[in-house]
Amino acid sequence: MAGLFITFEGGEGAGKSTQARLLAEFLRAQGHDVDLTREPGGTPGAEALRDFLLFGGHDLSARAEVLAHFAARADHVERRILPARAQGRIVICDRFADSTEAYQGYGLSHGDPALLDMIGRLRGLIPAAPDLTFVLQVPPAIAQARMAGRGNARTDRYEALDPAFHTRVAEGFDIIARRDAARCHRVDASGPMESVQQAIRAVLAPYLDGAGRGADV
Amino acid sequence: MAGLFITFEGGEGAGKSTQARLLAEFLRAQGHDVDLTREPGGTPGAEALRDFLLFGGHDLSARAEVLAHFAARADHVERRILPARAQGRIVICDRFADSTEAYQGYGLSHGDPALLDMIGRLRGLIPAAPDLTFVLQVPPAIAQARMAGRGNARTDRYEALDPAFHTRVAEGFDIIARRDAARCHRVDASGPMESVQQAIRAVLAPYLDGAGRGADV
Repeated sequence: MAGLFITFEGGEGAGKSTQARLLAEFLRAQGHDVDLTREPGGTPGAEALRDFLLFGGHDLSARAEVLAHFAARADHVERRILPARAQGRIVICDRFADSTEAYQGYGLSHGDPALLDMIGRLRGLIPAAPDLTFVLQVPPAIAQARMAGRGNARTDRYEALDPAFHTRVAEGFDIIARRDAARCHRVDASGPMESVQQAIRAVLAPYLDGAGRGADV
Repeated sequence: MAGLFITFEGGEGAGKSTQARLLAEFLRAQGHDVDLTREPGGTPGAEALRDFLLFGGHDLSARAEVLAHFAARADHVERRILPARAQGRIVICDRFADSTEAYQGYGLSHGDPALLDMIGRLRGLIPAAPDLTFVLQVPPAIAQARMAGRGNARTDRYEALDPAFHTRVAEGFDIIARRDAARCHRVDASGPMESVQQAIRAVLAPYLDGAGRGADV
């Protein structure tokens, strides 16, 4: 039986990581076999690239940065996501290719068509696409208040960028979600986390029939 | 006036780096403006990726490694090679995309068609191709003797691989050179370095008319 590959997308402060974790806990409590992972990262090599990209302080061109994110993604997909899905597991991933398009394509490169075209071609080289994607959306003021309240030990390079960057990223996610509407479900994530989680579970319910319970179901 | 983009390719012990340096010195003595560079590397970000890939001890899938090499290449091409060529300079690069095809495609992945296809598509995403390429070829016994005589301070991950790997790399370079025969010039690099250099200069001579002397020539 086929597994399920679910991604959570959205800007900083949208609550992706929290919602991904809550969903994983809920599904496990229901008896599903869940692999909760994240990008960039998810495998030892991809986590090393995450460190290089987010915290290394290296200056790369936009194309180079996109390619490096897809390098981490290739390792993650081949060595973790595809094997898990093939075993009938539910893979929940905090960020995936939509984040590369929103952050590098729309945020850093202001929607440069050549870079967006490159990202589209690179998507085609990665042998996995999500079955469904939750795009969490919050008004900028709420996102900024949540970011300010985090008190992270270390701030990554995107968190440190200016509000106009984060506005372009949010607009990019909205463009992607409308374009890939069959896969992407936009979720208003401005309310309490419990009610956001309820909305997510309602969208997911029809996908769950038979998914993620292993080959004997 | 257009510059010139020359690459040196070949396996370990073929003498690429020596021949690239000798050619740069010769051309500079002739009054040409030469930028001698190397891959992976050539810019600060790409050199950091070189360290990650060659000396970091990270384990990446073959696809991920190919994408990371192209990430370094994208930075190098955009920020150094294209600007130098646009200024009419002669760019001499020790390794380029043929090395990714020979090492990752033929050496590590035994000519896996899916990986070779991916490399071909990634070549198409990089906005520069060499004007000419010298593929230096030596019999395996000579290559191994030269590698053994190097006494490098640190051995990179490819140098440490077995002889069968290096044989596949050499065969890969030969396949590439025959396929792209208009660009690639195969050079027997088994003789003394001075005679190899003479052969290289003879091939290059017709390309030099007007190249690399700046816009006023």
